[in-house]
Amino acid sequence: MPLSEFGLIDAYFRDVGARADVRTGVGDDGAVLMPPPGQDLVAVVDTLVEGVHFPAGSDARSIGHRALAVNLSDIAAMGATPAWALLALTLPRADESWLAAFTRGFGELARAHGVQLVGGDTTSGPLSVTVQVLGFVPQRQALLRTGARAGDIVHVTGTPGEAACGLALLQGHEPRVDAPAAAIEGLRQRFLFPQPRADIGLRLVGIASACIDISDGLAGDLAKLAQASHCGAEIDHALLPLSDALRACVGDDAAGQYALTGGDDYELCFTVPPARLGALAGLPCTAIGRIVEAPGLRLRRGDNVIEFSHSGFDHFRV
Amino acid sequence: MPLSEFGLIDAYFRDVGARADVRTGVGDDGAVLMPPPGQDLVAVVDTLVEGVHFPAGSDARSIGHRALAVNLSDIAAMGATPAWALLALTLPRADESWLAAFTRGFGELARAHGVQLVGGDTTSGPLSVTVQVLGFVPQRQALLRTGARAGDIVHVTGTPGEAACGLALLQGHEPRVDAPAAAIEGLRQRFLFPQPRADIGLRLVGIASACIDISDGLAGDLAKLAQASHCGAEIDHALLPLSDALRACVGDDAAGQYALTGGDDYELCFTVPPARLGALAGLPCTAIGRIVEAPGLRLRRGDNVIEFSHSGFDHFRV
Repeated sequence: MPLSEFGLIDAYFRDVGARADVRTGVGDDGAVLMPPPGQDLVAVVDTLVEGVHFPAGSDARSIGHRALAVNLSDIAAMGATPAWALLALTLPRADESWLAAFTRGFGELARAHGVQLVGGDTTSGPLSVTVQVLGFVPQRQALLRTGARAGDIVHVTGTPGEAACGLALLQGHEPRVDAPAAAIEGLRQRFLFPQPRADIGLRLVGIASACIDISDGLAGDLAKLAQASHCGAEIDHALLPLSDALRACVGDDAAGQYALTGGDDYELCFTVPPARLGALAGLPCTAIGRIVEAPGLRLRRGDNVIEFSHSGFDHFRV
Repeated sequence: MPLSEFGLIDAYFRDVGARADVRTGVGDDGAVLMPPPGQDLVAVVDTLVEGVHFPAGSDARSIGHRALAVNLSDIAAMGATPAWALLALTLPRADESWLAAFTRGFGELARAHGVQLVGGDTTSGPLSVTVQVLGFVPQRQALLRTGARAGDIVHVTGTPGEAACGLALLQGHEPRVDAPAAAIEGLRQRFLFPQPRADIGLRLVGIASACIDISDGLAGDLAKLAQASHCGAEIDHALLPLSDALRACVGDDAAGQYALTGGDDYELCFTVPPARLGALAGLPCTAIGRIVEAPGLRLRRGDNVIEFSHSGFDHFRV
């Protein structure tokens, strides 16, 4: 498992983070790590492919940031604390300035979350980044998708939809824009540098009955949570937390669409039994609906009820 | 971290292996695992890219097998016992027969080594497979590259060079062949279905002073081991274990070349202090040289001493 088949990459990745629970990090066949006693280990993995998860020619610092962020978001959705990362990087050529920017984006986020890069693999090929993150959670306390029950209240953190609109703006696919430059730039940054909800995930342990990160869009991911819990869910359109920037850029109707079906937000969607709602005080989240017994996902908008028929962004959907 | 964005893949991967120390496997944002107390955790990752690590159009069962095997080889080189795997699979389209064959290759090897697939990510893009394996080793007992000392005897398992020759045969790049069909087929199988040396890695804990798997070729990987140990190494050409099949196919000279510089064997190269050599009795390994104080790698062949100037197969070497 050489992180570097050549010294150039080695130099960039050897010193990303530093933890006392790492016996052997980058540079051997494998990393040797010391899991804390009495904790479960949480393992997540996500891949970003050029042209699929980010536009060709994207800023390398954003790619490095996002490759780690999407995994830290999964760790947060499990209620776990991240510790160690492994990086499998496939790139067409060893480009020093690209690697410097990539490592800066990856490393800044790693340090902010106390994560050490402990190993990986680099190879040549079409640009693709796979990151694994390992973290811990007290035994049997991980937040799963399976624990929601009818009557639980559905919440979402932050203001979803901004990242998807930001990507559309970056790609020139959003023709409706008539908004202040600061609002537009803010949306772009939400796509380029998403901030995983690590602190909120930790706070939800013992409170939320189920949790998922909405990487594929709020509606589709809530539908997955409800299905995994053998329930259904309802969203009240009037409760969707739409940011001023998003509404300023595309108007209320499109903002609602982005919030429901846009991906890449890396916010958390979670359910809380009514008796524990008080424990959410101070968290940046919004109640948007509830869990019901009838399977499926429904959107209530005024007097209308709309059934969702698909499950978010499906990479292979035709 | 959805292993499947669509049900097809889910069906194939949900039941690869079954371990009692998995609380939550495939199907949530992350896997929840129970590391055994008193053990270090070993984490490895390796990527296979179509056209780089295997020829385009390769048998999917071989790709599935090799993607796991290369990681189990890293685990073996650490002296660890494998437990859990995560799979990041990027493929151009969801092809049911391809996935069935891939999963068969991956799953057969996983079950043979007691490994459970606990999560992953699938996405569309150029064919590429990244696997992460987690395993355990008693605290502070992992085999590293850094422990070799001058005077230690260098060993290699099995008969290296066969996989590289097998790949050359598969690609029609080996014109010198005049050998029985069974020998040729045996070499091909060595590339297509390498068998990681899991049992030998475990046996070497407490015996070997350093260990590395020779995925990039014996000479280059031994050079890395020696460098990591701040030593040099010498190989005696006459001691190289050349298989009858390899010699029958390409002759003694080319067989030696394949054994020294061919990659993809996934044998182990390790060093043992003279006082512990007796503990190797019964292991399928061969003493091929020794660790010396002077840096670098030298090959002794009759009266000649040849310095190695490169470090094995370098994906970016120009």
